[in-house]
Amino acid sequence: MYRNHTCGELRIADCGKEVVLAGWVQRTRKMGGMIFVDLRDRYGITQLVFDDNTDSDLCAQAGRLGREFVIQVIGVVSERSNKNPKMPTGDIEIMVKTLNIINSALTPPFTIEDDSDGGDDIRMKYRYLDLRRSCVRRNLELRHNMVMEIRKFLDNRSFIEVETPILINSTPEGARDFVVPSRMNPGQFYALPQSPQILKQLLMVSGFDRYFQIAKCFRDEDLRADRQPEFTQIDCEMSFVEQEDILEVFEALAKHLFKNILGIEMNEPFMRMTWHDAMKYYGSDKPDLRFDMRFVELMDIMKGHGFSVFDSSAYIGGICAKGAAVYTRKQIDQLTEYVKRPQIGGKGLVYARVEADGSVKSSVDKFFNQDVLQKLKAAFCAVPGDLILIMCGDDAMKTRKQLSELRLEVARQLGLRDKSKFKCLWVVDFPMYEWSDEENRLMAMHHPFTSPKTEDVPLLDTDPASVRANAYDMVINGIEVGGGSIRIHDSSLQATIFRILGFTQEEAQQKFGFLMNAFKYGAPPHGGLAFGLDRLVSIFAGLDSIRDCIAFPKNNSGRDVMLDAPGPLDQLQLEELQIKVDVKG
Amino acid sequence: MYRNHTCGELRIADCGKEVVLAGWVQRTRKMGGMIFVDLRDRYGITQLVFDDNTDSDLCAQAGRLGREFVIQVIGVVSERSNKNPKMPTGDIEIMVKTLNIINSALTPPFTIEDDSDGGDDIRMKYRYLDLRRSCVRRNLELRHNMVMEIRKFLDNRSFIEVETPILINSTPEGARDFVVPSRMNPGQFYALPQSPQILKQLLMVSGFDRYFQIAKCFRDEDLRADRQPEFTQIDCEMSFVEQEDILEVFEALAKHLFKNILGIEMNEPFMRMTWHDAMKYYGSDKPDLRFDMRFVELMDIMKGHGFSVFDSSAYIGGICAKGAAVYTRKQIDQLTEYVKRPQIGGKGLVYARVEADGSVKSSVDKFFNQDVLQKLKAAFCAVPGDLILIMCGDDAMKTRKQLSELRLEVARQLGLRDKSKFKCLWVVDFPMYEWSDEENRLMAMHHPFTSPKTEDVPLLDTDPASVRANAYDMVINGIEVGGGSIRIHDSSLQATIFRILGFTQEEAQQKFGFLMNAFKYGAPPHGGLAFGLDRLVSIFAGLDSIRDCIAFPKNNSGRDVMLDAPGPLDQLQLEELQIKVDVKG
Repeated sequence: MYRNHTCGELRIADCGKEVVLAGWVQRTRKMGGMIFVDLRDRYGITQLVFDDNTDSDLCAQAGRLGREFVIQVIGVVSERSNKNPKMPTGDIEIMVKTLNIINSALTPPFTIEDDSDGGDDIRMKYRYLDLRRSCVRRNLELRHNMVMEIRKFLDNRSFIEVETPILINSTPEGARDFVVPSRMNPGQFYALPQSPQILKQLLMVSGFDRYFQIAKCFRDEDLRADRQPEFTQIDCEMSFVEQEDILEVFEALAKHLFKNILGIEMNEPFMRMTWHDAMKYYGSDKPDLRFDMRFVELMDIMKGHGFSVFDSSAYIGGICAKGAAVYTRKQIDQLTEYVKRPQIGGKGLVYARVEADGSVKSSVDKFFNQDVLQKLKAAFCAVPGDLILIMCGDDAMKTRKQLSELRLEVARQLGLRDKSKFKCLWVVDFPMYEWSDEENRLMAMHHPFTSPKTEDVPLLDTDPASVRANAYDMVINGIEVGGGSIRIHDSSLQATIFRILGFTQEEAQQKFGFLMNAFKYGAPPHGGLAFGLDRLVSIFAGLDSIRDCIAFPKNNSGRDVMLDAPGPLDQLQLEELQIKVDVKG
Repeated sequence: MYRNHTCGELRIADCGKEVVLAGWVQRTRKMGGMIFVDLRDRYGITQLVFDDNTDSDLCAQAGRLGREFVIQVIGVVSERSNKNPKMPTGDIEIMVKTLNIINSALTPPFTIEDDSDGGDDIRMKYRYLDLRRSCVRRNLELRHNMVMEIRKFLDNRSFIEVETPILINSTPEGARDFVVPSRMNPGQFYALPQSPQILKQLLMVSGFDRYFQIAKCFRDEDLRADRQPEFTQIDCEMSFVEQEDILEVFEALAKHLFKNILGIEMNEPFMRMTWHDAMKYYGSDKPDLRFDMRFVELMDIMKGHGFSVFDSSAYIGGICAKGAAVYTRKQIDQLTEYVKRPQIGGKGLVYARVEADGSVKSSVDKFFNQDVLQKLKAAFCAVPGDLILIMCGDDAMKTRKQLSELRLEVARQLGLRDKSKFKCLWVVDFPMYEWSDEENRLMAMHHPFTSPKTEDVPLLDTDPASVRANAYDMVINGIEVGGGSIRIHDSSLQATIFRILGFTQEEAQQKFGFLMNAFKYGAPPHGGLAFGLDRLVSIFAGLDSIRDCIAFPKNNSGRDVMLDAPGPLDQLQLEELQIKVDVKG
């Protein structure tokens, strides 16, 4: 060992001890005849002192230390005259007797400080230096601690972690697969799993009863802001359960994490909301409930007063922003621009302010008399100082989604999206199907193995679009952190579902025959859930991006700029794999 | 929940309780007016009783149950008249009141019993049924338990688990990479990691101090008996350590596992042996020390007596098989055939029996008088009843390896390779380099970042082949379960090593420049170790193959016969990836 203590553990009680420390030079300061060095390792920072009066050679040597040099020192723990209460080691310093420079360092391309001067690109290129910043390292320590707690919890509940293979075949999950050419089977390819969905269902057929895996998953999608081509899933499946059993286990898991990781006790059951209500009242299947601003539908109140935009709409609805009557015209114009952006697609925004005297002042006063506006006010239980924001449109669902974006933006501006506050929610009763304009048919909303609610089974033939599934999502602070479903274990019901999805028997057999075949040998009722680990950690860490809780993330082009991957293959490798690159100009 | 108890938990104290159980029908037996059903789940087997006198309809229904049907029953726990002390639930049975058939089952293609009638191929094809066999499931439960204990141990010792990416670039590890074409970066490929070696070294540069990961690794090699294209490694790295620190931590980990998983206390330190001694005395860098049979070199005693085979040999050595003098001529002939097989390549075998009267009878008596044979006997401390087996050859190292195969075979025949006995060993002081006839140059024995022993550094220029590395393997029962090394953290030493390996500066820069560059920013001394998890589990489980502790293994052609992977890609996918299949006829 190059040390007998870490840089985070010495305290006032250790004074007088001779110790050996090793670590990186965080910074050096000269003061009078002394040199002070902050020595850093994963565990903390300890101040070293070199005294010119005691040993001028040693002090001169210390004077040549650069940032990020790796050194080892022997010295005596002493009480500081100038204590630093912000640091756990702030009461002591080390009077250095021996200095051993283990490795020098080039000047890093950005400062290794929480508040670094390095931009995103350079920090990603030198990710190994970025990871030295304690704010980045702490995210990965948090991730480790969360994963340890998750495993402990699930192990205590009789779940077995089973590793499923990475080199598998294409599965019908919807997204594009990454593939791997097989040298031993020329012309053939493995696919990397988009999730272990089929394998975990097979493990239920095998009688594993309770399975989990912290599993790497892969999707070759065009990367949006917060997606990675490889991501990690807490993948779970249980047998002989109903939806309620699964919600119970994973709500308990979430509470366990909040308690053991963040020290937050959540004694109340998580709120539950049907998908239908979530869409109706929040315009989103993952509403952020840290704040209220529930939608109020205004067709009854606002229609038929001669304002043609409203009169021709299929939906009129609004939100009430508490205390936002102070918004200036300019701020409201900016909100209007916000909802009109092509990504959102709103037509515009109508506002109504509740004045100090209780009267309502709106942007469309000429169409609405005070009577109507007072009804509007009452519908929101608005009080003086509140700002009502109204949107409308031809398609209720689309308008709700636009209104949801507005709701989130206003909440952001009002500081209501507080990262230290956590609001958990189960969204349940998802529809079985959603209509795809693109494919011109009903598509499975979750996946084709999802079981319908027993009471809705009769509707499968008459009104499939109204059938609800035993599918559920866990939402925290407006982010979907997990989702799952009860699976179908009855082969005739499965055949019906395939028929409604428009598969012929042959197509169903070809696409899903393998799993269907396994089900013929005695499949138990089963269901499960998968959490997105990256998202869960980033919420716990209060991060804006999942990237910051991944050690070596990829950029939006799927590149690892540090490793410079992907890269070209040499001809020999291509020949061995019996493939050719065929890039169209 | 479809049950309120599992099939493994009811005991005599539960008698009189009404319970709900669910599981699979293991077997049914009719006796008198009763039907007995063994109901199975992951947790055990519980006997169900259907009584024709009580409810003949129910009994008739039970009579139609087939093997592997999934059922739910409600019944009352009763004391058995005919107790089965071999089963934890053997004191009770369930008098069934209600039977609910959840799913029927086709007759499985092999019996779901520990002693199944299914061959390897059919069991692999229907792996989801094979996994129902408790002997197979227990291996995966053991694997889960071991991995939980490993994580607990390492977490307690301040190791952080960090997930490193799967989509990386080619690394210089020696074996062939699996590659993944990048759709977003046409003509470019990711490589799957052969190990996280470079990434874990970067994490040390980042100051993570103690890293581990239960990591999937990939090697596109022609598969020998006990290799898988994807396998799992317990990958570890530590900073500011010397070899001794690493051996201490991982010896403690192994002892922790033996104690907590198998209940075996190992209080003595593991034996240590230099690579040189391992080769000299056992002809193997992973000697099985569950038994002795150490080699004795016989050049002094056996050379120069006119037996030309010996007289012309560069090496003569033998082993003493205790009590094997009873071997018949036929048995010894079979051993001779064994060492002459092309995989072993021995020239032949000379034997010498120690008779009851102490005299020695050898297969080459005409060349050696009793005097010489008595010296031979003394060299082995052989006693009446022992059998001495001698091999010779032109190349000492090759002959030792042949003799090692003989030693293992004889031990097997004598029942000395007892799977319930565990003998752990550190093999240390591996050579830095080994000569490659193929490449006609010295190659790194471990990898090119391995640090030489400080005292051997002066030999780097004069006699590189004699330089010993700070490299070590953990061997259990003749199987290498883990290996690692202290890495070089000094760039000038690293440059020397590259030079000796025959790399020009440019080549070194091209192949390893990325890591070398990272090292310029302050690299700590570091080193690590990786265990093969599959092997470790299979040793603990007493298995002959790692396959049996992998949920979904691949066969020797790298195929998953259950999933039928790999498979062809459709043209659209190939076009999106901008590659072409180019199979040579």
